[in-house]
Amino acid sequence: MISIPTTRTLGGALAAALVLGLGAGGALAQNAPKEHASTPGAAYEPSLNTLAQIGVELPGRKPGDPVMTPAEYNRANTIYFERCAGCHGVLRKGATGKPLTPDITRELGYEHLKDFITYGSPAGMPNWGTSGELTDEEVDMMARYPLLDPAAPPEWGMPEMRASWKVIVPPEKRPTKKMNDIDIDNLFSVTLRDAGQVALIDGGTYEIKAVIDTGYAVHISRLSASGRYLFTIGRDAKVTMIDLWMDPPATVAEVKIGTEARSVETSKMKSWEDKYAIAGAYWPPQWVIMDGETLEPLKIKSTRGMIYDEQTYHPEPRVASIVASHFRPEFVANVKETGKTLMIDYTDLKNLRITEIETERFLHDGGFNSTGRYFLVAANARGKVAVIDTKEDKLVALVETGGQTPHPGRGANFVHPVYGPVWATSHLGDESVTLIGTDPEGHPDNAWKVVQTLYGLGGGSLFVKTHPKSHHLYVDAPLNPDPEVSGSVAAFRIEDMTQEEPEYTVLPIAEWAGIAEGQPRVVQGEFNREGTEIWFSVWNASDKESAIVVVDDKTLTLKKVIKDPRLITPTGKFNVYNTRHDVY
Amino acid sequence: MISIPTTRTLGGALAAALVLGLGAGGALAQNAPKEHASTPGAAYEPSLNTLAQIGVELPGRKPGDPVMTPAEYNRANTIYFERCAGCHGVLRKGATGKPLTPDITRELGYEHLKDFITYGSPAGMPNWGTSGELTDEEVDMMARYPLLDPAAPPEWGMPEMRASWKVIVPPEKRPTKKMNDIDIDNLFSVTLRDAGQVALIDGGTYEIKAVIDTGYAVHISRLSASGRYLFTIGRDAKVTMIDLWMDPPATVAEVKIGTEARSVETSKMKSWEDKYAIAGAYWPPQWVIMDGETLEPLKIKSTRGMIYDEQTYHPEPRVASIVASHFRPEFVANVKETGKTLMIDYTDLKNLRITEIETERFLHDGGFNSTGRYFLVAANARGKVAVIDTKEDKLVALVETGGQTPHPGRGANFVHPVYGPVWATSHLGDESVTLIGTDPEGHPDNAWKVVQTLYGLGGGSLFVKTHPKSHHLYVDAPLNPDPEVSGSVAAFRIEDMTQEEPEYTVLPIAEWAGIAEGQPRVVQGEFNREGTEIWFSVWNASDKESAIVVVDDKTLTLKKVIKDPRLITPTGKFNVYNTRHDVY
Repeated sequence: MISIPTTRTLGGALAAALVLGLGAGGALAQNAPKEHASTPGAAYEPSLNTLAQIGVELPGRKPGDPVMTPAEYNRANTIYFERCAGCHGVLRKGATGKPLTPDITRELGYEHLKDFITYGSPAGMPNWGTSGELTDEEVDMMARYPLLDPAAPPEWGMPEMRASWKVIVPPEKRPTKKMNDIDIDNLFSVTLRDAGQVALIDGGTYEIKAVIDTGYAVHISRLSASGRYLFTIGRDAKVTMIDLWMDPPATVAEVKIGTEARSVETSKMKSWEDKYAIAGAYWPPQWVIMDGETLEPLKIKSTRGMIYDEQTYHPEPRVASIVASHFRPEFVANVKETGKTLMIDYTDLKNLRITEIETERFLHDGGFNSTGRYFLVAANARGKVAVIDTKEDKLVALVETGGQTPHPGRGANFVHPVYGPVWATSHLGDESVTLIGTDPEGHPDNAWKVVQTLYGLGGGSLFVKTHPKSHHLYVDAPLNPDPEVSGSVAAFRIEDMTQEEPEYTVLPIAEWAGIAEGQPRVVQGEFNREGTEIWFSVWNASDKESAIVVVDDKTLTLKKVIKDPRLITPTGKFNVYNTRHDVY
Repeated sequence: MISIPTTRTLGGALAAALVLGLGAGGALAQNAPKEHASTPGAAYEPSLNTLAQIGVELPGRKPGDPVMTPAEYNRANTIYFERCAGCHGVLRKGATGKPLTPDITRELGYEHLKDFITYGSPAGMPNWGTSGELTDEEVDMMARYPLLDPAAPPEWGMPEMRASWKVIVPPEKRPTKKMNDIDIDNLFSVTLRDAGQVALIDGGTYEIKAVIDTGYAVHISRLSASGRYLFTIGRDAKVTMIDLWMDPPATVAEVKIGTEARSVETSKMKSWEDKYAIAGAYWPPQWVIMDGETLEPLKIKSTRGMIYDEQTYHPEPRVASIVASHFRPEFVANVKETGKTLMIDYTDLKNLRITEIETERFLHDGGFNSTGRYFLVAANARGKVAVIDTKEDKLVALVETGGQTPHPGRGANFVHPVYGPVWATSHLGDESVTLIGTDPEGHPDNAWKVVQTLYGLGGGSLFVKTHPKSHHLYVDAPLNPDPEVSGSVAAFRIEDMTQEEPEYTVLPIAEWAGIAEGQPRVVQGEFNREGTEIWFSVWNASDKESAIVVVDDKTLTLKKVIKDPRLITPTGKFNVYNTRHDVY
C-alpha cells in the first residue's frame, strides 16, 4: 500500500478535481459563484492522475480515517446498492435520503454514521441495526463505507442493452388466442422481492398460477393496453415481459436497461396500444423506449442536466415514476433530482418531441386523478404534490401536503362526502394522510387544495388504497419501528369523513396471517377487479413464512390467508384490470 | 514528487475508473458490450482515490513518458483551449479533429505528435510549427501535453452565469430613437480576433465607427430581429450586446455562458422579435436562453446525452450553429458530437418543448436555403450536409457532398443557370465546392442532390459567398498551406456554370492589400447591403498589419483597402442587413 502525503499545493484545484472527477460536477456549480481566472483555460482542473504526473502531491486520508479492504468494499457496495442507493442516490448526492458525499460524511464522522445506521431516525431512515437487517459487523462496515468517495458506476448504452436483450418466444410463435382458463382481468402480479420473482395469483380462487423469474426486487408490474402482456421492472433494471395468454403465462422477452431502475410503462393511447414500452433507470440516469412486442430497445435518452430551479448541473437525475397519458400519445416521466416532468411524445422516435415541465425537485411516485386527466406526483423531500395537466402539458399546481415526505404510491381516488372527488396520499415521515381536491370543474374551490387531513397509525406509511366501489380508504405503515403498527392497517370509512377528525378501524393483518416466526411488515393494499376485496402483503424475512391476507371491504373481516412456500417476501401487488385502467 | 508503482491488481477496473473519473463515461460505453457481474453493485467502479484508500496500488506512467511542470501544464492548457479544443474537443474525444485521449496519444507517441503539430496534415490540421504560430518550445510542450489525461473543466451553471452578467445600460436608460447618423443596415461588424474586439465599419464610407471590447476571438455577430441590437459571442463564451442606436454604438449588456462557445442567435418569429437571445456553449455542453433586452440568463439546458446512432453516452456534445426559425417560434440548435438538431420552442420556458431530430454526427455550421424554410448544416467529419425542414420539424435529406470536411459557414444561395436554386459549400479538406439543389417545388429532381461540383484554389477553404444581386460565387482558402493560395480568392461567374467544369478568376486579395510583412490569410467574403461589393479580411499576425479589401462584384476589381492600426487580426464580418435577414 502506498503512503500518500498530505497535499501542500493546489489543494483547492485538487479538491475540485476530485469532485469533478467523480462526475459530480454539480457540487462545484452549487457553490457560490466564484472568480474564474480571465485567461482562457486557466479555470480547467487537472485530473488526479495528471496532478500525479505533473508532480503535484496527492492528498492523504486523515490519520484516523477508517480503511476498508477491497473485499469489504465490494460487500459494502452491494449492500449500498440494495439498501441505500434508492434514497441516497448512486453518487450519494441525496434525494429522499440525505446526501452522503465525503465532505459531509467526514464531517459527521464514523461514530455518528454508525449510530444513525443502527437506530434509524423518525424522519424515515430505517433502523438497520436494531431491526436485525444488518449485523453489527455490517453496520460497522457501512459506517466506514460512506467516508470513501462514491463509486463511479458504468454507463449502460445501446450496446449493453442489446447484449442483454433476449426474445424468448418471438411474436410469431406466440398463441393467437388465450390458451389458459385464467380470468386474466382478476389476476394479481405479486412481487416476491428477495426471490427475484413475481407470483401470478388468481383473484377468484387465490391459486398461484405461475411463479416467474424476473429482476431483483421487482418495483412495479404494468400491463399492456390490451391486457395481454405483463411487464415487470427489477431494481437491477431488468425488464421482463410476460405473455398472459400462454398456458401457463410465461416470459417472452427480457432486457436490462441499466444497473438500477424503478419504472416501466406501456403506450396506452388509442391506435398506439401495445406498440411501445418505456422504462426509466436510476443508473445510468436515462430512459428507453422499447418495442411493445419484443422489448427491443429503440431510443435511449439521458436525463443528465440542470436542476429546474437552481439551474446547476446534476450528474444523476434519476427517472422515478412513469405513466402513459390517456389524452395524448405521450409518456409522462418524472425526473427526480432535477425536478422535471417530461411529456414524451412517442409518435415519432426519429424526431422526438418532449415537453419538459418545471415541476419540483425529488419527484417520486404518483398517479392520475379519477378522470385520468391530471397526474399527481409527490415531490417527496419537498413535502409537495405536483399536479400535471396531461391534456395541456402544463403544471397546474404545487400542493404542500402538510405532512413529512409524502409517498402516495399511485394514490387513492374517491368521492369525499363533503369535498367531492379527492386524491389521497400518506407519508413516510408522519401519520398524516392528506386529501387533495381533484375536480376543478365540479368543485373549483377545492381543486388542488388540501381539503382534509386524516391521521393514521403512525409514520412509515408507504401506500393508501381504495376503489370506486369501496367504502374505505386503507393506510399501511410498514416502515414504522413499532411492530404492532407495521403489522396493521388503518381503514377509514369514507362516509365518516364528514367528521373533522374521522376515526379508523385497525385491521391486525399480521396477526390474522398467523405467522409464528419473525416480525413481518404489512404493505400495499390492492383491490380485486370487482372492488370487493383488498389484499395485503405480510412481508417477512426471506427465510421465514410470509403471506397475503385478503380482507372483505364491506365488513372489514378476514376472508382468506394465502400461504405457500413459494411466497417469499411478497411486497407490491398489481391487479391486472385495475392496473391496466389506472383504477386506484 | 511521488513514485507511483505499476498496478498489479484491479487494472481493468482502474482503467475504467480513470476514464469515468474524467467524466468521459462514453468511452466505456463505446467499447464492445461486456459481461457485467450479476451481483448488483459489483459492476460499480471504485474511484482512483478510493482505490488508494482501500489499498490498491496506482498505475504509474511508463518510464519514458514525458513529464510537464505545473507551469508548463497551465500554459499548455491555455494553448490547447485557444488553438486545439475547437476541433479536438475539451475532453479530447475528437470531432472535426481526431480524438486525442491518452489511450490514443500514448500509442502514437511523442515524436509522432510533435511532427504532426509542426507540419500539420492535408486533411486540415494546421502546420503550427512551420507557420510560426507556435515556437519550437511550444510545439515540444504541446506534444507532451496530450499524453496526460484531459483536464476536467468546471461546470458553468446559473450561479456562474448570473455572477458574470452585467447590464451596463439598462433598457430604460437607452435612447428611444436612433441617436447617430450611421446607416445601420449597411454597417459591418468585423471580428478583431486576437484583440478580443469587434470593429463596426460603415459600409458606405469604410469608416470605423466604433471598436468595442468583446469576448476573445468573436466567432459570430448576430442581429436582433429589429436590427437595433448586435450580439457577439467570444470563443471564451462571453456574449456582448451592443446597442446600435447609441452614439457611438456601445455595449449595453454582457454575460459569460460557459468557458467556450461558438453560437448566438435571437428570436425572429413574428411577435417574438427582440424577445429572446440564445447562446450555445462548447463547454459546458449546454445552451442558454437569455432575455433579449438585458441578456439575463433565463433557461439553461445541458446537451449531454446519447449519440444518435450508436446510442452511447457522450459527455461533451457541443452546441455548434444556432439559427432562428422563420416558420415557428423556435431556435434550431445543432449538437455536434451526438448528431442532433434541436428545435427549441421558446414560447413557454417553464414548459419547454423541444423536438430532437436525429441528424448526423459532427454537425457544425450551416445556413438557410433562399426561401428560409430549409436549414442546411454540415456534418463535417461525415462529409455530409443535413437538410432540416423548419416548417415540419423533420430531417428531409442527408446529402454526401463528395468533398472532404464540408465547411459552409452559412453557405451561399444563388439561382444556377441550369439547376435552379442551389446552396453551395466549400471544404476544409479539398478544393471541391459542392452545389446542392434546394427547390423541391420548382426543381424536384434536383432537390437535395449534388447538382454540380466546382473546383476552387485548393483545400483549407472556410467560406463561400454570394448575394441575390451578385454575379459571382466567391471561395476562399485561408487554411491552405501555400501562401499564394491562402492569400487569394476564387471567383466563379454564375452564368458560366452551364459549363461542365467552370473556370474561375483568381483575386490576389493579399497582394492588393499591399502588406509588407507577414503572411496574411484571406478569409470570409461578406457583401454590403446592396450586393454590389464584397469585403475580404486580410488576416495577419496580431503584431503585424492586417487589412480589409473591398472588391467590386461586377468588375472583380479592387475598390478599397481599409487599413487602420485598430484592425488587428480581422476575420469574420457580418453586414447588419444581410445577417438580420439571412441573406447569403
